Amino acid sequence: MTYQLHYWPTIQGRGEFVRLALEAAGAAYVDVAREPPSRGGGESNLGRRLGDPDNPRPSFAPPFLVDGDIVVGQTAAILLYLGPRLGLAGVGEADGLWTHQLQLTIADCVAEAHDTHHPLSTGLYYEDQREAALARARAFREERIPKFLNWFETVLKRNPSGDLHLVGDVLTYADLSLFQLVAGLRYAFPKAAVRALADTPAVAKLHANIGRRQRVHDYLRSPRRIAFNEDGIFRAYPELDG
Amino acid sequence: MTYQLHYWPTIQGRGEFVRLALEAAGAAYVDVAREPPSRGGGESNLGRRLGDPDNPRPSFAPPFLVDGDIVVGQTAAILLYLGPRLGLAGVGEADGLWTHQLQLTIADCVAEAHDTHHPLSTGLYYEDQREAALARARAFREERIPKFLNWFETVLKRNPSGDLHLVGDVLTYADLSLFQLVAGLRYAFPKAAVRALADTPAVAKLHANIGRRQRVHDYLRSPRRIAFNEDGIFRAYPELDG
Repeated sequence: MTYQLHYWPTIQGRGEFVRLALEAAGAAYVDVAREPPSRGGGESNLGRRLGDPDNPRPSFAPPFLVDGDIVVGQTAAILLYLGPRLGLAGVGEADGLWTHQLQLTIADCVAEAHDTHHPLSTGLYYEDQREAALARARAFREERIPKFLNWFETVLKRNPSGDLHLVGDVLTYADLSLFQLVAGLRYAFPKAAVRALADTPAVAKLHANIGRRQRVHDYLRSPRRIAFNEDGIFRAYPELDG
Repeated sequence: MTYQLHYWPTIQGRGEFVRLALEAAGAAYVDVAREPPSRGGGESNLGRRLGDPDNPRPSFAPPFLVDGDIVVGQTAAILLYLGPRLGLAGVGEADGLWTHQLQLTIADCVAEAHDTHHPLSTGLYYEDQREAALARARAFREERIPKFLNWFETVLKRNPSGDLHLVGDVLTYADLSLFQLVAGLRYAFPKAAVRALADTPAVAKLHANIGRRQRVHDYLRSPRRIAFNEDGIFRAYPELDG
């Protein structure tokens, strides 16, 4: 079965957490909006599908995943669905739940990273909320990045199976998502991220290890990996890095 | 088995979504931090448990739920765990997943509601970020509340089993959480909520119906229901209601 991922075609964004899971598992998938318009690609087709009046279970926003009759939206719910199918959710109910709890905490940090450049409204340009962005970014850099990364460091250090993975001694989508979170923080807040990672060596090591896994390594160097850019969640605005 | 809920003892907050599910199902539970300190209650005991160095799977923040050997944090993950056990998750994998997707979208709106009074930093007082709060609250009132409630209206209207429930024709934790979201919006943004609910009659009807269910009705009038207040997520600051 080929999975269909529907997400904005020009950014990593929240869709990237799903792309990474599919890529790391070697799953067959189509990143539909990145296909030519003649094959259903492009933002207008994505918007049309999102607004399809015949869909009884529409998603609030991209990404959403189609797998036969199943249509599921919300990044964490997509990973909850894919996890056991791709062998990326740990073993058993307790580990699956813990993997999901980790993912939801990563999602909280991702949402906060987004709000550093859009603290007042997603309907305003960054330039029109820059003063508030400076204040929000400072709190994010000084309080939130260390708090989140220290928590993940604690989780790794307390893992009875060792600190190479967040859940047991197997790769899960939480590991992949933490890799992506760290990659995003390093892009958007290079100075703050380096400082925080100096205090969280297990997180830094996980990030390096995941990036060296063969399939992830190949994906990151392929044209399928969209480069970070200033339309996405993680944006390199130097003034927000202090 | 008596569930143990661990959450701040003086606010509804995110814990209220768990309390509502437990109450609506008539489940046996202890709201631990609201017990006397001699029985493990109080904020200091909550903080101690959160920081317990022997817990291999600590939560990032309250709420967390203890059920025997299982400890699970993150509101949506707690509900994912409780849903099938309390008969509040729909029937089968697809409905369980859809229930969770709805919950995650409710959680997104709840996080945005929180940020109307803390748009710059959770580490600053409201009074010190009031100007930014006015701007963020305006965007939330004018754009986000209608967008979220219209989406839930669409979900209800397209439900093939009728518009009394979000998932099929059974009560789920998503219904209870939408009830709580609407209750919170009506408390914090009475004028904006009334306007939005006038355009979303199925959402308004669901809110009224859930509040009339016997167990929910009894809970809401019991001392177990903490009143909304200005330490919680939904805060009645009239200036933020426009």
